[in-house]
This record gives sequence, C-alpha cells and structure tokens, in this order.
Amino acid sequence: MSDIRGGDLPDLPDLRSEADALDSKDELAAKREEFVLDETVYLDGNSLGALPANVPGRLAEVMTHEWGRLRIRSWDESGWWTAPERIGDRIAPLVGAAPGQVVVGDSTSVNVFKALVAAVRIARGPDHPSEGRDEIVVDATTFPTDGYIAESAARLTGCRLIPVAPADVPGVLGARTAAVLLNHADYRTGRLHDLPGLTAAVHAAGALVVWDLCHTAGALPVGLDEHGVDLAVGCTYKYLNGGPGSPAYLYVREALQPRFDSPLPGWNSHAEPFGMRPGFEPADGALRGRVGTPDILSMLALEASLDAWDGVSIDAVRAKSLALTDFFLRCVGAYVPTGRVESLTPAAHAERGSQVALRCEGAGDVMKRLIEQGVVGDFRAPDVLRFGFTPLYVSFGDAERAARVLASTLA
Amino acid sequence: MSDIRGGDLPDLPDLRSEADALDSKDELAAKREEFVLDETVYLDGNSLGALPANVPGRLAEVMTHEWGRLRIRSWDESGWWTAPERIGDRIAPLVGAAPGQVVVGDSTSVNVFKALVAAVRIARGPDHPSEGRDEIVVDATTFPTDGYIAESAARLTGCRLIPVAPADVPGVLGARTAAVLLNHADYRTGRLHDLPGLTAAVHAAGALVVWDLCHTAGALPVGLDEHGVDLAVGCTYKYLNGGPGSPAYLYVREALQPRFDSPLPGWNSHAEPFGMRPGFEPADGALRGRVGTPDILSMLALEASLDAWDGVSIDAVRAKSLALTDFFLRCVGAYVPTGRVESLTPAAHAERGSQVALRCEGAGDVMKRLIEQGVVGDFRAPDVLRFGFTPLYVSFGDAERAARVLASTLA
Repeated sequence: MSDIRGGDLPDLPDLRSEADALDSKDELAAKREEFVLDETVYLDGNSLGALPANVPGRLAEVMTHEWGRLRIRSWDESGWWTAPERIGDRIAPLVGAAPGQVVVGDSTSVNVFKALVAAVRIARGPDHPSEGRDEIVVDATTFPTDGYIAESAARLTGCRLIPVAPADVPGVLGARTAAVLLNHADYRTGRLHDLPGLTAAVHAAGALVVWDLCHTAGALPVGLDEHGVDLAVGCTYKYLNGGPGSPAYLYVREALQPRFDSPLPGWNSHAEPFGMRPGFEPADGALRGRVGTPDILSMLALEASLDAWDGVSIDAVRAKSLALTDFFLRCVGAYVPTGRVESLTPAAHAERGSQVALRCEGAGDVMKRLIEQGVVGDFRAPDVLRFGFTPLYVSFGDAERAARVLASTLA
Repeated sequence: MSDIRGGDLPDLPDLRSEADALDSKDELAAKREEFVLDETVYLDGNSLGALPANVPGRLAEVMTHEWGRLRIRSWDESGWWTAPERIGDRIAPLVGAAPGQVVVGDSTSVNVFKALVAAVRIARGPDHPSEGRDEIVVDATTFPTDGYIAESAARLTGCRLIPVAPADVPGVLGARTAAVLLNHADYRTGRLHDLPGLTAAVHAAGALVVWDLCHTAGALPVGLDEHGVDLAVGCTYKYLNGGPGSPAYLYVREALQPRFDSPLPGWNSHAEPFGMRPGFEPADGALRGRVGTPDILSMLALEASLDAWDGVSIDAVRAKSLALTDFFLRCVGAYVPTGRVESLTPAAHAERGSQVALRCEGAGDVMKRLIEQGVVGDFRAPDVLRFGFTPLYVSFGDAERAARVLASTLA
C-alpha cells in the first residue's frame, strides 16, 4: 500500500492540458468511437464493459434472420453449433494462446469447477484415482465464487482445501498438492500476481495450476502458452465487453487435452453429439470443455463485441493501461487532500492490474456521490473505491475528471 | 407401436376442409400472430421454438438502454440481478409449481448435475454422507446428455449407475436407491412417461426423483407440486420459445430447499452475494440453484418470449396438442401409402407427448426433401422422422399440409 501525497494546491490547468496532450497522441483513441458512451466517466468496465456499437445491429440480425427465418437450420447454416470454439479462437490471442485451446460457454464459476476437478484427475493420473495427491490450494484473497467452487471440487474429489494468500502458495506446495487455483489479479486491490513464477512453482511440485483471468484478460498480456499454464478460465463481460453475464471461457493446454476428464460431460462434448449414443466418448481438443446447448444470443453478442479487438495489440493496451493508472494516481495525489485516500494498488507496474483501488472512509457514500456526478466506479465493502481503466475506451481526460470530482466530493 | 393404415385413395378435399374447420374454432389460433412465421410448416418447435414477435424489440431496448446507457446500474435498476428467480416464477405455473421453487440459468445438463448430486445428498441425509444409498437409477432411453451427466454424478458421489427403461424403474428400486433421473417424454418416440406413478414408486423406496421436462413443459400439464416431484429441470428453447440455447431452469420443491446442497455453490447462491465472504453460506429458497453471473441477454429474451403465455391455459394447450397429433396421424393414415411409415408415438393420449415420430426407411433423405418443400421436422438416427406440434402456433392446416407433402415425397 502506498500513500498518495496531496500537492499544495490543485494545479488543475496543467493536468488538464497534460490529459489533452496524452489523449491526442493515444494510438488507441479512435477505438473509443466503437463504443456507446456518453458524458459519463465510466470507470466500471472491470465490472461490466461498455456496449460496443456494433452489437445491437448484429444481434438484431441474429434474432430476425437466423432465429426468425432460418430457425433450426441456423445450427448448421449460421454456424451456431461451432460458436463456442470459434469464439474461443478469437479470445485465444488476447490471452496468449494458440488456436484450439479455448472454448466459450457457461459461467466462470462452472468453468472453475470443470477445470479444478479435471486438474485433480490429471494430477492423480489414471492409475491412482483417489490416492497420493489430495490437496487443492486456493487463493484465499480470490473473488469468493472461486473459493466456494474450490471447496465443492475438494469435497467431491476427496481433497483437503488449503486457502492461502498467493504469495504464500510456494510454501504450501508439496507431494500432496493436486491442483492450485489462483486469480491473476486481486479483484479488490488490483494487485497483479506473478503468473509465470507461481506457475513454475506449482509445476515443480508436480501439480497443476488453474488461473482465473477475469480481471486481466483484455487489459494486459497473459501469456498462457508462453508460461506453460495448464488450465485457465475467465469471464468476457469485463475488459472484453461481451455484455452482462456473457459466457465465460475455458483454456485447456493442448498437451493436457487428451487427459481432460470433465465432471460435466454433456452431449456437446461428445465425440459424436448427434450419434445420440448412450455411452459418453469425449471429443478431441478443447471441445471437451463444452457441456450443454450453447446460449446463442449471448454468445453471438460476445462474438460481435470482439470485433473491437481487430488490429489492437495487447501490448499497446497494457502500455495505455499503465499510463492511465499512473496518470490517475498522479491526479488523485495532486487534487485530493492528503490523508483522505490511500491507494491499495501497487505502485510497481509489474504488480498492477488495470484498476486503482483507493481506501477511503465512508467509501460507500462517496461512491454514491461520485456516481451522481457522472463518475462511475465500484464500491467494494468495507472501504474501497474501485476504478477500472479499460484502455479501449477510457481517456486520460476521463482519468483527470474522475480525480477532480473525487477531490471535490471529499472536500 | 401402431401401424398407420393408408386409405384407399387420398381424400384431400375433406381433410383440408376439416383442417379449416378445426382452425376456425381453435381458441389458441390468435396466438399464432404473436410469432414470426412464414409459409413454412414448422414442426420443429420441439428442437427450437419459433421467434416470438416481441423479442427483438425488447432485446434492442435491453442492449441500447439497459446495457448501453445504464450499464452497471442495470443490475439493480433494470432488475437484472433478480431475473433468474423472477423468470422462474413465470415458468412455474406452466409446470404446475407455486412461486419460489423455480430458478432459471445454466444449461439443462448443468442443472441435471446440480439436481442429481443434491438429490443423492438429501437421500443419504446429513449423518450418512457416503453410506447406505449408493445407487442412481437413470432412464436408459433418455436424451443422452442426461445419461452422461448421471454417470458423472454417480462417479463423484460414489454411486453405482443403473440405466433402465422407465417402465422397468419400479423393479430396480430399493433401499440402496438414492436418486432416479427420468425424462417426462421420450425425445425419439414422443412417449409420455407416467410421472405421478413413477414419482410415487420412487418415494415408496425412500429415494428422490429428478424429472427432465425438456419435451413436455409448455406442451402439456406437468403438475410438479400436485404429484410431489422432488426436483425437475428443463430447457426453455423448445415449447417455451426462449431462443437458441436459452437458459434452462431448475425446480426444487419448497420442502427440500433447506436441504438442497448444490455441487455448484457459486456467489449467486450465497446468502449475501455482495458480502464477498470467504465462506459459503447458502441463500434460502430456490436461489440455491443459482451459480454464477446470469446470462442477461439470453435471459431477458426468454422473459419476453414468455409473454406469449399470458392468458393461456395449459389445459387448452394440451387439448389442442392432442387434437393436432390425432389429426396429423389421421392425415398420414389417409395420404401415405400403407407400410411406408409406422408411428412410434403411442396412440393412447395418456402416453403421448406433443410430437409424432414416424419410423421410415431412408428417414434422413426423406426429411431433407421435406425441408426443401417447406415442411420442417427433425431426423433422428437411424430411421425416425420427428414432427413436433407447438399448440401456440401450429395449425391444423399445417398438420394436413405436412402429411400431404410427406405422402407426395414418399410416392
């Protein structure tokens, strides 16, 4: 945690000009036009991404033409059936995955369950289904649903659940560790965890790691293939802007796919779904992560929303994200009276996601008043103001205005 | 199975006039106007219901206003957060359930998993988590995904899976039975199973029953409360017309809700979801069946589609369904040369769902040619032509024309 020192007097003109200058040389600035935005400063894209402008038109076509006219024929003719893997392949480059390893569908929670049970089964191997490795380690600071699902996975596979802070994970790994579930970024503080280092530590213990990318995919490079991650899950409604509750995704490293033994083997993951066979035979590849009939309207809205990533480099996104959060922290430091807020977000770039969390007395009320004044962030109990920075549509001008409104609210 | 005897000569004019007469006195006829239909005879509503005309407008509003303008505020202000239980309560009367017992979300397969694992846990009781009842009985003729998921549920709860035909279920029930998973109607033949009788038999053995209503909800009265069903699941994209892959639902009988112990305890089923607590405490009521963030676009499309049920009595739907399938079978009998098709659908009303399955040589090719001629049904391997009758929008004229085109195709 780092203190934010207030300046002597708010130096408004300089920071506003600086924001203008930064916006004028922002190579992603034009992307903002691809989203439906208004005068609001929207810093809650890490809860729900803004609406990409092309989505309503595309979904209207899906409803009136594909569902309304072609009806059942669209499963083939409109490519509905293959949407989960096709859209997975569009998400793949954003998380550093080669094609054929990502499949879209279900919620993050359900995908955590698939990934974790499958990881335990792989770690134990086919010959020792219930002995040897009997521990699941889970990030104790994670978004709660991951912890609840991990507890259920542990109960159903006969494992003991070990919740620890990510930094303490290496200390609890050993010959009994089956699988480790970690969040790439802390949803409260915005702290980015060491994915390469922790992945290597888990592998050194002979276990598998599952990463939850909800708060990083679309905001910074993840490098799943490069770092040898085993399994990963993530939602698509934050930095990927797929829409409220849009389907999540599951990454299964190619080398593990033949051993991916899903606890939710639905007809969509069968080798021959329309063979309607009584016995289950898993499909090859990431398709094994599918379960039931895919939710087409939400899924095709997500697919359209991904058009916004055409021609975008995730490195450019990361550079802008860090510049935005740096600049916001500077503006807060300059505008907000000393001692009124304290940043929980690490100052070091290597430890920072794409959000700024400020501890603040009366944070719930403060956030209400910010929202009334057109600056939308999130309150996280008990005392955190959370501001998410989506590089595709948040400007430096937004960052400056948010800090200014925060300062006047606290004054 | 009953033979369909061809008449001497096709008696076209009489059956066409009869269709007209039946349509003119059909009290549900006006409902057809609420759907987007064309010159096609659409007898595949048991795979994908037709588009209700109000859905595109409603979803446009959800996208542009609720997501596009209100953004994150819509979770509260537009009622997104409570959609799963609110929409569940709209489905409830269609399946004979009092409010507070149905929750919408996830796929049918995922809901089968929740229901079956929870049923086993309830049957065993809290004091005997892994002994005593160690058998799951599953409908061997069921839609395959139910069987695959049942196998997974059995494996994870340490049960043995016993697949038998529904009629043979009573013979395998006993002190070791934990749960029984049955389909209300056979997806191939359209045979309706004896829900009251089989439910009573399962209860007499001290076990719990899970009914899959995919092929009956919206087509006939189910009577979940009346018959004391424990748990039920169903999709919403067949007779409920919710859209491709629209979210499924889960029914948990009120008396069982305090003991419903989900294998997928996500943050949405927590007693205090925004408390972000590390330990899981289940919510009260049907909410326990929720898991992750609900898929809002698909869910609100479903909600709009349910407007079509306003003022509709499910008894009237059932009466029309039986009249339609009776009339279709008569037309097939009159038009189709003797011996070319054989009905797999029971003649007795009490044993018939809302579809007609005809065994036919070369059924795959025959269905292709029917579709080319604007009569859309389903082919089910190896030799079944399947015609679904959705009483809200299928007319007697449709039934007559389908039989006539089938006859000319087979001639």
